[in-house]
Amino acid sequence: MTAAEAVAEILRQIAGEVESHEDGHVADYIPQLALADPAVFGLAMASMDGEVGGAGDPRAPFTIQSISKPFVYALALADHGLDAVSRWVGAEPSGEAFNAISLEAGTGRPANPMINAGAIVVSGLVEADEILPFLSAFAGRALDVDEAAYASEAATGDRNRALAYLMRSAGALPGEPGPLLDSYFRQCSIRVTATDLAVMAATLANGGRNPVTGAEVVAEPVAVLVQAVMASCGMYDAAGDWLLRVGLPAKSGVSGGVIATSPGRCGVAAFSPRLDPTGASVRGVAAVRMLSDRFGLHLMHNPSVREEQRLGMRGTIPS
Amino acid sequence: MTAAEAVAEILRQIAGEVESHEDGHVADYIPQLALADPAVFGLAMASMDGEVGGAGDPRAPFTIQSISKPFVYALALADHGLDAVSRWVGAEPSGEAFNAISLEAGTGRPANPMINAGAIVVSGLVEADEILPFLSAFAGRALDVDEAAYASEAATGDRNRALAYLMRSAGALPGEPGPLLDSYFRQCSIRVTATDLAVMAATLANGGRNPVTGAEVVAEPVAVLVQAVMASCGMYDAAGDWLLRVGLPAKSGVSGGVIATSPGRCGVAAFSPRLDPTGASVRGVAAVRMLSDRFGLHLMHNPSVREEQRLGMRGTIPS
Amino acid sequence: MTAAEAVAEILRQIAGEVESHEDGHVADYIPQLALADPAVFGLAMASMDGEVGGAGDPRAPFTIQSISKPFVYALALADHGLDAVSRWVGAEPSGEAFNAISLEAGTGRPANPMINAGAIVVSGLVEADEILPFLSAFAGRALDVDEAAYASEAATGDRNRALAYLMRSAGALPGEPGPLLDSYFRQCSIRVTATDLAVMAATLANGGRNPVTGAEVVAEPVAVLVQAVMASCGMYDAAGDWLLRVGLPAKSGVSGGVIATSPGRCGVAAFSPRLDPTGASVRGVAAVRMLSDRFGLHLMHNPSVREEQRLGMRGTIPS
Amino acid sequence: MTAAEAVAEILRQIAGEVESHEDGHVADYIPQLALADPAVFGLAMASMDGEVGGAGDPRAPFTIQSISKPFVYALALADHGLDAVSRWVGAEPSGEAFNAISLEAGTGRPANPMINAGAIVVSGLVEADEILPFLSAFAGRALDVDEAAYASEAATGDRNRALAYLMRSAGALPGEPGPLLDSYFRQCSIRVTATDLAVMAATLANGGRNPVTGAEVVAEPVAVLVQAVMASCGMYDAAGDWLLRVGLPAKSGVSGGVIATSPGRCGVAAFSPRLDPTGASVRGVAAVRMLSDRFGLHLMHNPSVREEQRLGMRGTIPS
Repeated sequence: MTAAEAVAEILRQIAGEVESHEDGHVADYIPQLALADPAVFGLAMASMDGEVGGAGDPRAPFTIQSISKPFVYALALADHGLDAVSRWVGAEPSGEAFNAISLEAGTGRPANPMINAGAIVVSGLVEADEILPFLSAFAGRALDVDEAAYASEAATGDRNRALAYLMRSAGALPGEPGPLLDSYFRQCSIRVTATDLAVMAATLANGGRNPVTGAEVVAEPVAVLVQAVMASCGMYDAAGDWLLRVGLPAKSGVSGGVIATSPGRCGVAAFSPRLDPTGASVRGVAAVRMLSDRFGLHLMHNPSVREEQRLGMRGTIPS
Repeated sequence: MTAAEAVAEILRQIAGEVESHEDGHVADYIPQLALADPAVFGLAMASMDGEVGGAGDPRAPFTIQSISKPFVYALALADHGLDAVSRWVGAEPSGEAFNAISLEAGTGRPANPMINAGAIVVSGLVEADEILPFLSAFAGRALDVDEAAYASEAATGDRNRALAYLMRSAGALPGEPGPLLDSYFRQCSIRVTATDLAVMAATLANGGRNPVTGAEVVAEPVAVLVQAVMASCGMYDAAGDWLLRVGLPAKSGVSGGVIATSPGRCGVAAFSPRLDPTGASVRGVAAVRMLSDRFGLHLMHNPSVREEQRLGMRGTIPS
Repeated sequence: MTAAEAVAEILRQIAGEVESHEDGHVADYIPQLALADPAVFGLAMASMDGEVGGAGDPRAPFTIQSISKPFVYALALADHGLDAVSRWVGAEPSGEAFNAISLEAGTGRPANPMINAGAIVVSGLVEADEILPFLSAFAGRALDVDEAAYASEAATGDRNRALAYLMRSAGALPGEPGPLLDSYFRQCSIRVTATDLAVMAATLANGGRNPVTGAEVVAEPVAVLVQAVMASCGMYDAAGDWLLRVGLPAKSGVSGGVIATSPGRCGVAAFSPRLDPTGASVRGVAAVRMLSDRFGLHLMHNPSVREEQRLGMRGTIPS
Repeated sequence: MTAAEAVAEILRQIAGEVESHEDGHVADYIPQLALADPAVFGLAMASMDGEVGGAGDPRAPFTIQSISKPFVYALALADHGLDAVSRWVGAEPSGEAFNAISLEAGTGRPANPMINAGAIVVSGLVEADEILPFLSAFAGRALDVDEAAYASEAATGDRNRALAYLMRSAGALPGEPGPLLDSYFRQCSIRVTATDLAVMAATLANGGRNPVTGAEVVAEPVAVLVQAVMASCGMYDAAGDWLLRVGLPAKSGVSGGVIATSPGRCGVAAFSPRLDPTGASVRGVAAVRMLSDRFGLHLMHNPSVREEQRLGMRGTIPS
């Protein structure tokens, strides 16, 4: 068995194990999301040398939703630098849910770019028409927008509208609520697969260079910053528990996607629509956690201990 | 110049740079702390092969204060396992200051073991007389308690008493307030040096084995968990910014100490009494940040990028 | 000196005393408000037998702003009854500022109808075109809308828009944000004088019957409920202190108006644009407080004690 | 039928109606309280001319608990005046439960004297041994302390201890936690009956003069202030709803007592141990509300409307 075959076998085992999970509920607050097939499960992994493996149904399409947030944050950082971006959005975990208000008293600055308020601000810091090509460069192929999902988002986004008006009332919104929310709803409606997301995550893990296409999408310092914010804030009010038990920068979305990065080693992604109470995919979270365990990816591992545990797997994807 | 000499030179440079920082104020809410000499600065680093370097005054003694928290948490995890400990204390950043109340509604469970409420609970989960020997094993020498500081803590700890009674009223305190706070105040009064703390941090970074003495102080999974909680909660309400800009598990204390771990690479510690508004040492934070930059220790770095940046330093302490 | 002359003399004395107060700042968050002449002061009082007295400039016009809230709440109560209205808005003091979010967790129901969120909901419970005639019946003359102020409100009402969208996202808004806010901004722009407001307050104090025109504007139980909510919530985060020191149901507005009712005795109103930090008129509050003291109007007075203090004034307005 | 007989008949009717309420639960967080007979119900009313009527079991004894708070606040006001007392405790409704923390940010000053934190501070402002004689003067007989209940309070008062230490840590406690809490627990354990409480309430309503004994217990301005705070804060997080529907200053206690005052007219009290979720007696609240309705006591009534409703009852107790 080659190393790549060994990895593929592990992915298949994990897919098999998590497919028995039937807990959780498909998101229904956006009508289009409620149409998702709850039984779908996809898992994908991309290494630093560009190998991409998958299990289940890694080519099933879905809307990216909140997983767009770290990538648009990367675009804002690339355009303006950390200091300029930090004037508009913080980087502190809020300890609250994805749609929490969490605006800094006095300034109206959102706590971090992973909650909706912060992501709306970040969308306002970039050119709306740069977002789709930029995320496509991360994925290594031309992504498109799911127009039905976009229309559905726009029709039901009252809480996001409220956040935008609250921030504008505090002078904390870099643009007009209408076009800015439009851009935000469009970025959430970009269509991806688990394979796409694994390559996107691997591009961050690889210091900003897409390991499949070889393109340098962002500079290494930007990739570092984005993964740091994913580590502290990507899993909302479960961020601390995630870092404890999985130990990887990650981001989930309400359509059922979840990504994680292992810096210098791999990007992983899973997709399954049923969500836990924090709004993360039940099977997706379980799969990424197993994957982190199986390949010893936890950031806090002593790599020399890790190596002893991985006898015979040296040189494979997660090394 | 040997590798060790190169490292020593970098530590000296950093010490020289930060000693010009005169911002911040020595903590005065515990009388004994207010007596500290504000001009002292110590910096130390310990590698996985047991080399220990320092600059400034790395042998200056001070009380460990909140830096005891991750180590006593390690003891509780070693004694009871994560599931049992999690029933008493969470692992989520509270986004609040070190003395915040941050108890879970209903249960009274503290948000995490790095805030005072959580640390008091954790002290109640271990035998009071195991703490000093356990921390001594991390340091690789017999530590002692600064009795004057302990008396001073005990006389002024009203807020901690309040936290203990609040938790007991919710059935969330594993013991009696009196002896439990006594044990907590004692653990905060353990006397250490920057060198001690660097070895203690290196022991965590090394997967629980003290790299100087060779003793296995805790099992690797415990060291992983402790560093994960340090990463998400160790720097209180500045935890996100710290992970963004420094990228290492860390813990600060009000006496002016700060530690950071780089898993599989090194432990670092700095000491200087003047504090910033979040209660962390101004010079200590600056020094650890420079050190992370200089040696490319940020957890989110792609190590292959890192290696190119470290030409000529292969094999030295921070590799 | 007749009783009416005695009352007029007291009003003149109070006007003379408060006109020396130059503290506070004219509201500037709505451009039109910032144009107000800070020196204007008007004071008026209307008795249960329809006598109306005044001092200073009681005929100076200004926009009613938040003082519209209790009257539109009266309209909603008259139309639907307390139980139906209570499903949309509570009656508890929020202990927070006028523009606080204060929505009930889970339901999104605003804490009370005196804060903006609650007043917006209440506006949605009544027909937009009933508001102006209804308030006119309270005043006893045909009021009109200050169109320039209305345009100014509508252009700067981001925080109110945010509140409306937040409530709609929770299913807690009885209407569409656009027309509902339009109606709310119009009601805030109704033009009144201190004399108008004194008659409006006296109508509440008189159990819903306008003491000047004799018209029964609302039933007595509605007048009772409205004054009860004014007593507990009318002065926002200073409501408790107001009840302690002045002891009357009251409502202030950011244009500088303030009203108070003394059930069965009189209605009073004052106007002066400079505001204290809670958003209430500095001179208006001082004048109403003096008036309550001078005439022994505090709700908690023992009337027999009061009567002894008022020898020689029996039968005058505030009896 | 004389007026007094008419009143007695109404009290009997109300007692008959509320005795069918079997909702609610006897407080169990203090062991001694859990021993109360849930079936007991007492109702009493005292007029300004010293007539005292009752129904049910108005002589059943119970511990006064939080109903002590307004009376000890009266003692503090009598001793020091409002300005001095206000430096230690505010008068704003907190919108929170009786045992809420509700300390002002920065100063640690409790929101009001009706929540536990505020009442503990108020106890510290008076001489411990003045409390029992002072409350006895309000009741018009020598009250005593239920020593078993006191021992029970002292043994389980962790949350109150926490509040005391929190306040001391902010320099906001006028005394030592130990003796101060001891005094507070003793005042809560004073034994009263519904008849006692009705006379105590009537003393407030009568401007501080006990209508039965004729003694002036406090000056009228103190009685006014105490009733104002009862109106805004006495019913905790249900204060606004109470003022809306009952319209009287009031105070409840966890043993099942509730009092209300009608300034210049009467004092009323009810007792029954089963509590609603806000911690107020289910039957007690129902009885006081019926009583307010039946006698037209709502503070916001226009008395002339009231009089028409009370034909044939002029001169009776609630006039």
